[in-house]
Formats: sequence, structure tokens, C-alpha cells
Amino acid sequence: MSEEKTAQTVAELASLAGARVVAGGDVLVERVASVESATSGALAFVEDGKNLELAGACRASCLVVPEGSGERAREIATQVAAVVEAARPKLAFALAAEALHPPKARAAGVHPSASVAQSAEIGDGVFVGEHVTVGERARVGAGTQLLAGARVGDGVSIGAGCVLHENVVLYDGVTLGDRVILHAGVVVGADGFGYVKDGEGVYHKFPQIGTVVIEDDAEIGALSCVDRGALGETRVGRGTKIDNLVQVGHNVRIGERVVIAAQTGISGSTVIEDDAVIGGQVGFGDHARVERGAVIGSQAGVLPGKIVRAGVWWGTPVQRLDDYKRLNAHVNSLPRLREELKELRRIVNELSARLKGEEGGG
Amino acid sequence: MSEEKTAQTVAELASLAGARVVAGGDVLVERVASVESATSGALAFVEDGKNLELAGACRASCLVVPEGSGERAREIATQVAAVVEAARPKLAFALAAEALHPPKARAAGVHPSASVAQSAEIGDGVFVGEHVTVGERARVGAGTQLLAGARVGDGVSIGAGCVLHENVVLYDGVTLGDRVILHAGVVVGADGFGYVKDGEGVYHKFPQIGTVVIEDDAEIGALSCVDRGALGETRVGRGTKIDNLVQVGHNVRIGERVVIAAQTGISGSTVIEDDAVIGGQVGFGDHARVERGAVIGSQAGVLPGKIVRAGVWWGTPVQRLDDYKRLNAHVNSLPRLREELKELRRIVNELSARLKGEEGGG
Amino acid sequence: MSEEKTAQTVAELASLAGARVVAGGDVLVERVASVESATSGALAFVEDGKNLELAGACRASCLVVPEGSGERAREIATQVAAVVEAARPKLAFALAAEALHPPKARAAGVHPSASVAQSAEIGDGVFVGEHVTVGERARVGAGTQLLAGARVGDGVSIGAGCVLHENVVLYDGVTLGDRVILHAGVVVGADGFGYVKDGEGVYHKFPQIGTVVIEDDAEIGALSCVDRGALGETRVGRGTKIDNLVQVGHNVRIGERVVIAAQTGISGSTVIEDDAVIGGQVGFGDHARVERGAVIGSQAGVLPGKIVRAGVWWGTPVQRLDDYKRLNAHVNSLPRLREELKELRRIVNELSARLKGEEGGG
Repeated sequence: MSEEKTAQTVAELASLAGARVVAGGDVLVERVASVESATSGALAFVEDGKNLELAGACRASCLVVPEGSGERAREIATQVAAVVEAARPKLAFALAAEALHPPKARAAGVHPSASVAQSAEIGDGVFVGEHVTVGERARVGAGTQLLAGARVGDGVSIGAGCVLHENVVLYDGVTLGDRVILHAGVVVGADGFGYVKDGEGVYHKFPQIGTVVIEDDAEIGALSCVDRGALGETRVGRGTKIDNLVQVGHNVRIGERVVIAAQTGISGSTVIEDDAVIGGQVGFGDHARVERGAVIGSQAGVLPGKIVRAGVWWGTPVQRLDDYKRLNAHVNSLPRLREELKELRRIVNELSARLKGEEGGG
Repeated sequence: MSEEKTAQTVAELASLAGARVVAGGDVLVERVASVESATSGALAFVEDGKNLELAGACRASCLVVPEGSGERAREIATQVAAVVEAARPKLAFALAAEALHPPKARAAGVHPSASVAQSAEIGDGVFVGEHVTVGERARVGAGTQLLAGARVGDGVSIGAGCVLHENVVLYDGVTLGDRVILHAGVVVGADGFGYVKDGEGVYHKFPQIGTVVIEDDAEIGALSCVDRGALGETRVGRGTKIDNLVQVGHNVRIGERVVIAAQTGISGSTVIEDDAVIGGQVGFGDHARVERGAVIGSQAGVLPGKIVRAGVWWGTPVQRLDDYKRLNAHVNSLPRLREELKELRRIVNELSARLKGEEGGG
Repeated sequence: MSEEKTAQTVAELASLAGARVVAGGDVLVERVASVESATSGALAFVEDGKNLELAGACRASCLVVPEGSGERAREIATQVAAVVEAARPKLAFALAAEALHPPKARAAGVHPSASVAQSAEIGDGVFVGEHVTVGERARVGAGTQLLAGARVGDGVSIGAGCVLHENVVLYDGVTLGDRVILHAGVVVGADGFGYVKDGEGVYHKFPQIGTVVIEDDAEIGALSCVDRGALGETRVGRGTKIDNLVQVGHNVRIGERVVIAAQTGISGSTVIEDDAVIGGQVGFGDHARVERGAVIGSQAGVLPGKIVRAGVWWGTPVQRLDDYKRLNAHVNSLPRLREELKELRRIVNELSARLKGEEGGG
């Protein structure tokens, strides 16, 4: 998001954000801010009724509060000109921010230092920044922004309204949908990692001649990689969000609305279904499958071929969080277990001695 | 690999790939594809005789099958014009693909937007792409391709037939052999991570003035780093293949034909001998040694100074896979162990009570 | 560091490095090297008196040795013209190297292929390399070097004496102090990873409109990311050193003189206090806190909200190294524990049988 600001009334924002105006519908707001740092012109939010006290010293122009707490908020936040109620204040805040802080718009045009192939098709309103390269037969959809140093290979297809940040690299032939955001340094379409060893122990590349498709509204964080398919395609689904420094291997298929945190690595041909949530630094072996609605904790390790069903998973090798916790509790109580065993052995020795004594004395 | 195609006869390809023509030696093939997606003009393969049934609906022009199954393949794959047999169909397929999909050839020449130092030596047939920089006294061998935005530092030496993909950075003084492939965003020769704390707690850089040598036929994946030696060199051996987002620290020595999967990190001065295979997200402490032929599973952690001998290793701290499995089975049976202990205590209590009863009653 | 050399006398260097000249104060030295590889003109060091024997074959012009061993060093190192003593030879060596190998100085000026906004302020002696871009209202302090392909966004503020290596990207509005070094491909100020799901399961970006401040003398390794704050700022403290491929999430605050090794990832709003030392591939959940002086071993996992106090920590979930070792010893002795339990059961069964026999026989 940018620093561009577009003032809007509280009533307009409330309508966009599915919120109800308690007071100050005609107050103008031009940006969002945290409750603590907000000043005049800002919209802030309190997620939880219990945190309403935070609002006491708040200097925002508008405060979004949980449903049913508007009047109380009015009392507490005496310095705030407008109050709106929302079922989910954080969501309303994000929706208002989308309106107040739209992606930075750059004037259409091709910078003279850019190098665009004659056979490339550049749509209306496209921004091509400094030192950008666009390859032969590439197509760039309307309103897309290619920031400085972005590299678009031959035959690449980019939809409308995308933003490729600085120094992004798209290898030949990859496809992006509409409104895709790739942060600085992302690499899409590099060769997957596949080799075959010959009789002399020399590695030959298994062909990496497939492609990559990134669907509408996907966003990929800085310095992440999505490798091209070996023979088929690698796919990132619509609305999926990937953090920084993530590795997506060849022929991986990631569904829609999947969230993947930083530094996770996904080996070849693994499938992650819609709405999965993956923590940071998770590792996936090849040909694994994460089913719809599964949640995998950070640093987990998923073995090749493993199927991860809906629910919360943890650890290496990955297991259900409940099982992990149970087992972990067992491990943590090992010192006590050993004490108990020792104590039991003492008792048994005593019994043994006593019995022997009786027999001897019998 | 590129989309360039060079049609060849099945007989030619079979000869290159060490395969035997069963039928259709003069059929022309121009690309490789998977059995499922192949169409006319494509060569596909079936690795395993058990999977021959897959070939029934195959529309490839040529099918590579395991030795001894050629005639049966002929019967099943009625739509396939040519069949060849190979001891290792996947290897034959990869070798055929090397011939059919050679690296994309770009016309020799220096793009006008590139900046090449006057003192640099550029060999025959070299391609220098858009916005490339080549430093003072750098040498670039014949037929090497420097793609858009690649940065070649002062005094760098690059062999023949290399490909530096977009936005690769070579710091001053590093050396690449012949046919080295560096994928987009790779950084070679940045300072290693070494500091010395002074009496005030301030860190001073330990000198990082060594260099990096990457030998012939090595390939390094997108956004991986190989740091320069502190005082000596960091080395990646001939034919070694490194995946994306891998960190190779200063003074590391990696042997020949080593394979290292994505996001692995190797701390300073560690040695990885020839033919080792390293999984993804493995971490190596400094001064460790991986001996020839060792295989280390993903997410393993190798402590500083550890010696990893031939065989398969797993876990953190790394141990032999068999030991890991045995210990893991013990951990997994902890709930049962606890049950057994409880049961034993019950029996002992009973014995104890009975004995006391006898004594009391005696 | 560069290959630039500035010859200095041993006396000058000893003075800079807090060392005492034993012999050869007027000998000229022009570079540092390891004891093994040093030749005439080089300064080398031996950290430990026990390693003095290494010096026997040393061909350096000057040797730094531990205090009190200078005369002995003189005897052993007969080929070395100068000997100096230091309380901490490695530190003295690093300090001498700072003098002998200053950062490569590039002549001030803006390369014609660079693109610098008219509203940008470029200080004295600034080097702007090939294909660099500097945005509107950006300020670049005196003597700073922006190497080829570096991208400086609108409103960025860079202090004096910084080095931005090739293809570094600074998003709009970030701030660097003085003498900050960013290695190739570093990305500072990309959007943090924060989304809010709406009723249809669609993710909306939580606003990422904060900024990043990197204080004086910080150094960040190749291909690391520091995300901008969501609403506030992300901060990297003075003199902090971060290795390659590290992820620093939004609103993280890293103190002064912190050291963070490669591939570590730090989730949003986590605080790392002054003088902490963090190994490689460590993962931090959000809102964790690492207190001053804590040391965390490689591959550790710190849960969200966890407070890590001074001392040495290890493992996932992170625990004190002593506790980890104790527990690990328990886990490793599980096979023996099971044997002991089995043996105890055998004894109890025997007792049981004996008691039953007595009763039966009674």
C-alpha cells in the first residue's frame, strides 16, 4: 500500500466496510492508524470491547468499535469526532484502509530506459518503469505496473491491474492473472530441481519445460520463488497469499485462498488445497497433499506422500496438534517417569528381600 | 531449458540416449512430454513395466519403455508410432530432452543498455543482455549468456557456455568454470558472516577478503547465496546442483556431484564431500564434515564440527536414520510405557498388601 | 571489503589495534592473510598460544600473537619480520584489517544510465552506479555508494557512508542511518504479511502503511528482507548484524549489537533486545520477546508471545540449553528405560508366582 490519500466521509467508509454509524457520519477521514498513534484525520479501531479503555486518549477522527459498544465508546472517546460499530472491527478497518490507501498509481507510460520487445502487447494505462525488460510476444494487461528492474520473459502473459515490484523476474512463458502482486525480487518460472544420475554418477537435468500459472488476486512476498513445472505446470490459486522467502517447487498445485508464511518450502508435485493455512519455515516433501481447511504450525515437517487432513497439525513428522501435545507432555514427564521406575524398583527389591527373608526364616 | 525445438529421428535420439529402437526409428520427434499430456511429435517415457497400461491412451510419437517390455508396449500403445527400450527409461528421456530442448540460444552481442568496462574481455559469441553490468578486467568466456540485469563485478572470471539468469550478482573477483548455470537473483561472493566483538561490545568485521570458485557444470537455483571466503576461498565442485534459497557460508567446500535441496544453510568452513545428497531446510553448523556418499534428510540439523559418514542420516541433532527411527518408535510408545508402569505399580502394591496381610496374619 | 590496499607500518597498525610491538615496528604491511597462506607484505595472527607452532612455516611480514608469547613467537617464526602482542589477537587482526582493507571507494558521480528523480537530494561524494533508480524526494547522505541496479523508492532517507550493493530494493519511505551496509538483493520495506478474512473467506490486506528504520552501522546480508510496519515501524538497531536470507516481519524491533545468522525468520511484532545472539534457521512466532543477552541456538523455534530471558536456549519449543540437554539425555536413554521396565516386570512376575505358590502351598 502507498501513502496516497483520498479523504472520505465516515458514512461512505462505514457503508464500504459494512459498519453502522453511531456518530459523526459526515466527518472526513483520510488515513488509517493505530489507536495509540492516530491523530486528526485518521480512522482507528478497537477489536475487543475489553480494550475500549485504550480509546480514552485516542485522537483519531473516527473509531471503529465492536457492535453494541458504540455508545460506551462515545463516552470514553471524548476526543473522537465519529464512532462506527462493526461486527468485526478489524475487518471493517481493513476494508476502510483499502479505500483510503489504494495501491500507488503511477502515470501510464514506458520509461525511456526500459526495453520492451516490439512484438510485446502493452495494454492501456500500463506503467513500465526504469530499466524494465519485456520479452518477445509478452502481453501486459491494462493498468498493470512493472516497477524498476522487473524482468518479463518471452511469451509471458500478465493480466490487468497487476503490480510487479522492483527486480521481479518472470522466466519465459509464465502466466499471471489479474490483480496479482509480486513483491521485490520474486522469481517465477525458474527451472525446477530435478536430475537423473547416469552410470558415471553425472547428473543430467530432467526436463524442466513446463510453466507456472498464478491466478487472480494472488500476492507473493519478497524474494520468494515459484519454479516452473517439469513437464506440466505449477499453479498458485486465486486469492492465495504467500509470504517472503518461500520456495514453491515444480508441479506444486496450491489452491485458492491459501495462506503460507515466510520461509516455507514445498517440494515437487505437492498439492495444497483451498483455504489451507501454513505457518513459517514448514517443509513439505514431494507428492504430499494438504486437504482443504488444514492448518499446519510453523517449522512442521511433512513427509513425502503424506496426506494432511482438515484440522490443526504440528511438528516433525507432522501430527495432529492434540497428539503432538500429548506426546510432548509424555516426553516432558520423562524425568518423573524415571523417578517412578526407580521408586518402584526400590519397593520391589524390598518385597523381594522380605520374601526371601520369610522363605529363609520359614 | 527453453521452448526451442530441433526435430530429430527416433533412431538418432535412441543412439544419444543409449536406447534400442523397437519400432519407428525414422519417426521424427521434436519435444518431450509426459505420457498423459503427450501429443504428436512428442517423446514420452514409462519408467516401470507395471505402469505400461498408462501407455494405452498415449498419443506421443515415441515411447521409451523399460528393457524387455518393448513388444508388449507395442501392443498396448497402438497409437504410438515409435517405441524404444532403455535400461533406465527416465535417464534416456532426460538425455533425449537434452538434445531436443537445448538451452535457449541468444544471438551474440552486447545490448546498448548494458555497461561493459573497457578493460573487460568478452569472448566469442557472448550475449550481454539489457542493463547488464560487467566490471573492470572481468573475463567472460565464449558463448556465455548474461541475461538482463546480471551484475558482474571487477576482476570476475566466467568460463565458456555459462548462463547467468536475470539479476544475478557476482561480487568482485569470483570465478566460474564452464557451463555453470546461475538462476535469477543468485548472489555469489557477498561478505561472509564473521565479526569480532571489542571491549565495548561493538562488532568489527573479521576480514572477508577471500573469494569463491564455482566449478564446471555446477547449477545454482534462484535466490541462493554463496559467500566469499574470509581469507581463503569458498568452493562449489564440478557438476554439483544446488536448489533455490540455499545459503553457502564462507570457506565452505562442496565437492563434486553433490545435490543440495532448497533452503538448506551451510555455516562457515563446513566440508561436503563428493556425491553427498542433502535434503531441503537442512542446517549445518560450522566446521562440520559430510563424508562421501552420505545422504541427509530434510530439516536435519548438523552440529558444529560433526562428522557425517556415508549412509542415511536424519533429525536434529542428526543421527543415522535407523537410530532415529528406533528412538522415534520409543518416543511414540511412551503412552504405552506409562501404562505398563502404572499396571506394574498396581501389581506391586497388591503384592505388597498381600505380603503385609500375611505378615500381619502370620 | 575490497582488494584495495594501503600499506602501513606495523607500529601504526599496532597502535590502531591496541597491540604492543615486540619487533619490527617499521616493517610495512599491506594486507591480512591466514597464517597458512600469508606471504611477504601480509599480517597474520595466532589466536592461541598453543597454536604458535603453526607460525613456524609462516611467511607473513607480521604476526599478531597472544600477550606474553611474543618472545617465543620470535624464536619460532624465524621468517617473520615483525611480531606484535595483543590481548585478543583475532580482534587486533580484525582492527588491522579495517585499516588495510577499507571498503572499496568509488569515484563520486552519477552513472548516465542511472535514473535519479529531480526532487532527490544527493549528498557530496555519492556514487550512483549503473541502472540505479532514486525516487522522488529521496535523500542520499554524503559518501554513500549505490551500486548497480539498486532501487531507492520515493521519500527514502539514506545516511552518510552507506553501501547499497547491487540490486538492493528500498521501498518508499524507509530510513537508513549512517554507514549501513546492505548486501546484494536485500529488500527493505515490502508489505508485511497481514490479512483479514471476510465472510466469503476472501483475504483483505490489513494495511501495511508503516515504515522501516535501520540504524547506524547495521549490516544486512544478501537476499534478506525487512518488512515495513503495518501501522508503525519495523526497526533494526545500531550496530546489529544480520546474515543472508533472513526474514524480519512487520513491526519487529531488533535492538543494538544483535547478531542474527542466516535463514532465521522473525514474525510480526517480536522484540529482540540489545546484544542478543540468534543462530541460523531459528523461527520466531509473533509477539515474542528475546531479552538482553539471550543466546538462541540454530533451528530453535520460539512460540508466539514467548519471553526468552538471558542465557543459552535451544530446540523447539525453545528451552534452556541445560533443560534441553537433560531432557534429550532422557529421550536417548529410552531404550534402557524400557529394558529396565521389562526386567522389573520379570522380577515382579516371579515374586507374584512365588507368593502364589506359597499361598497355594500354605
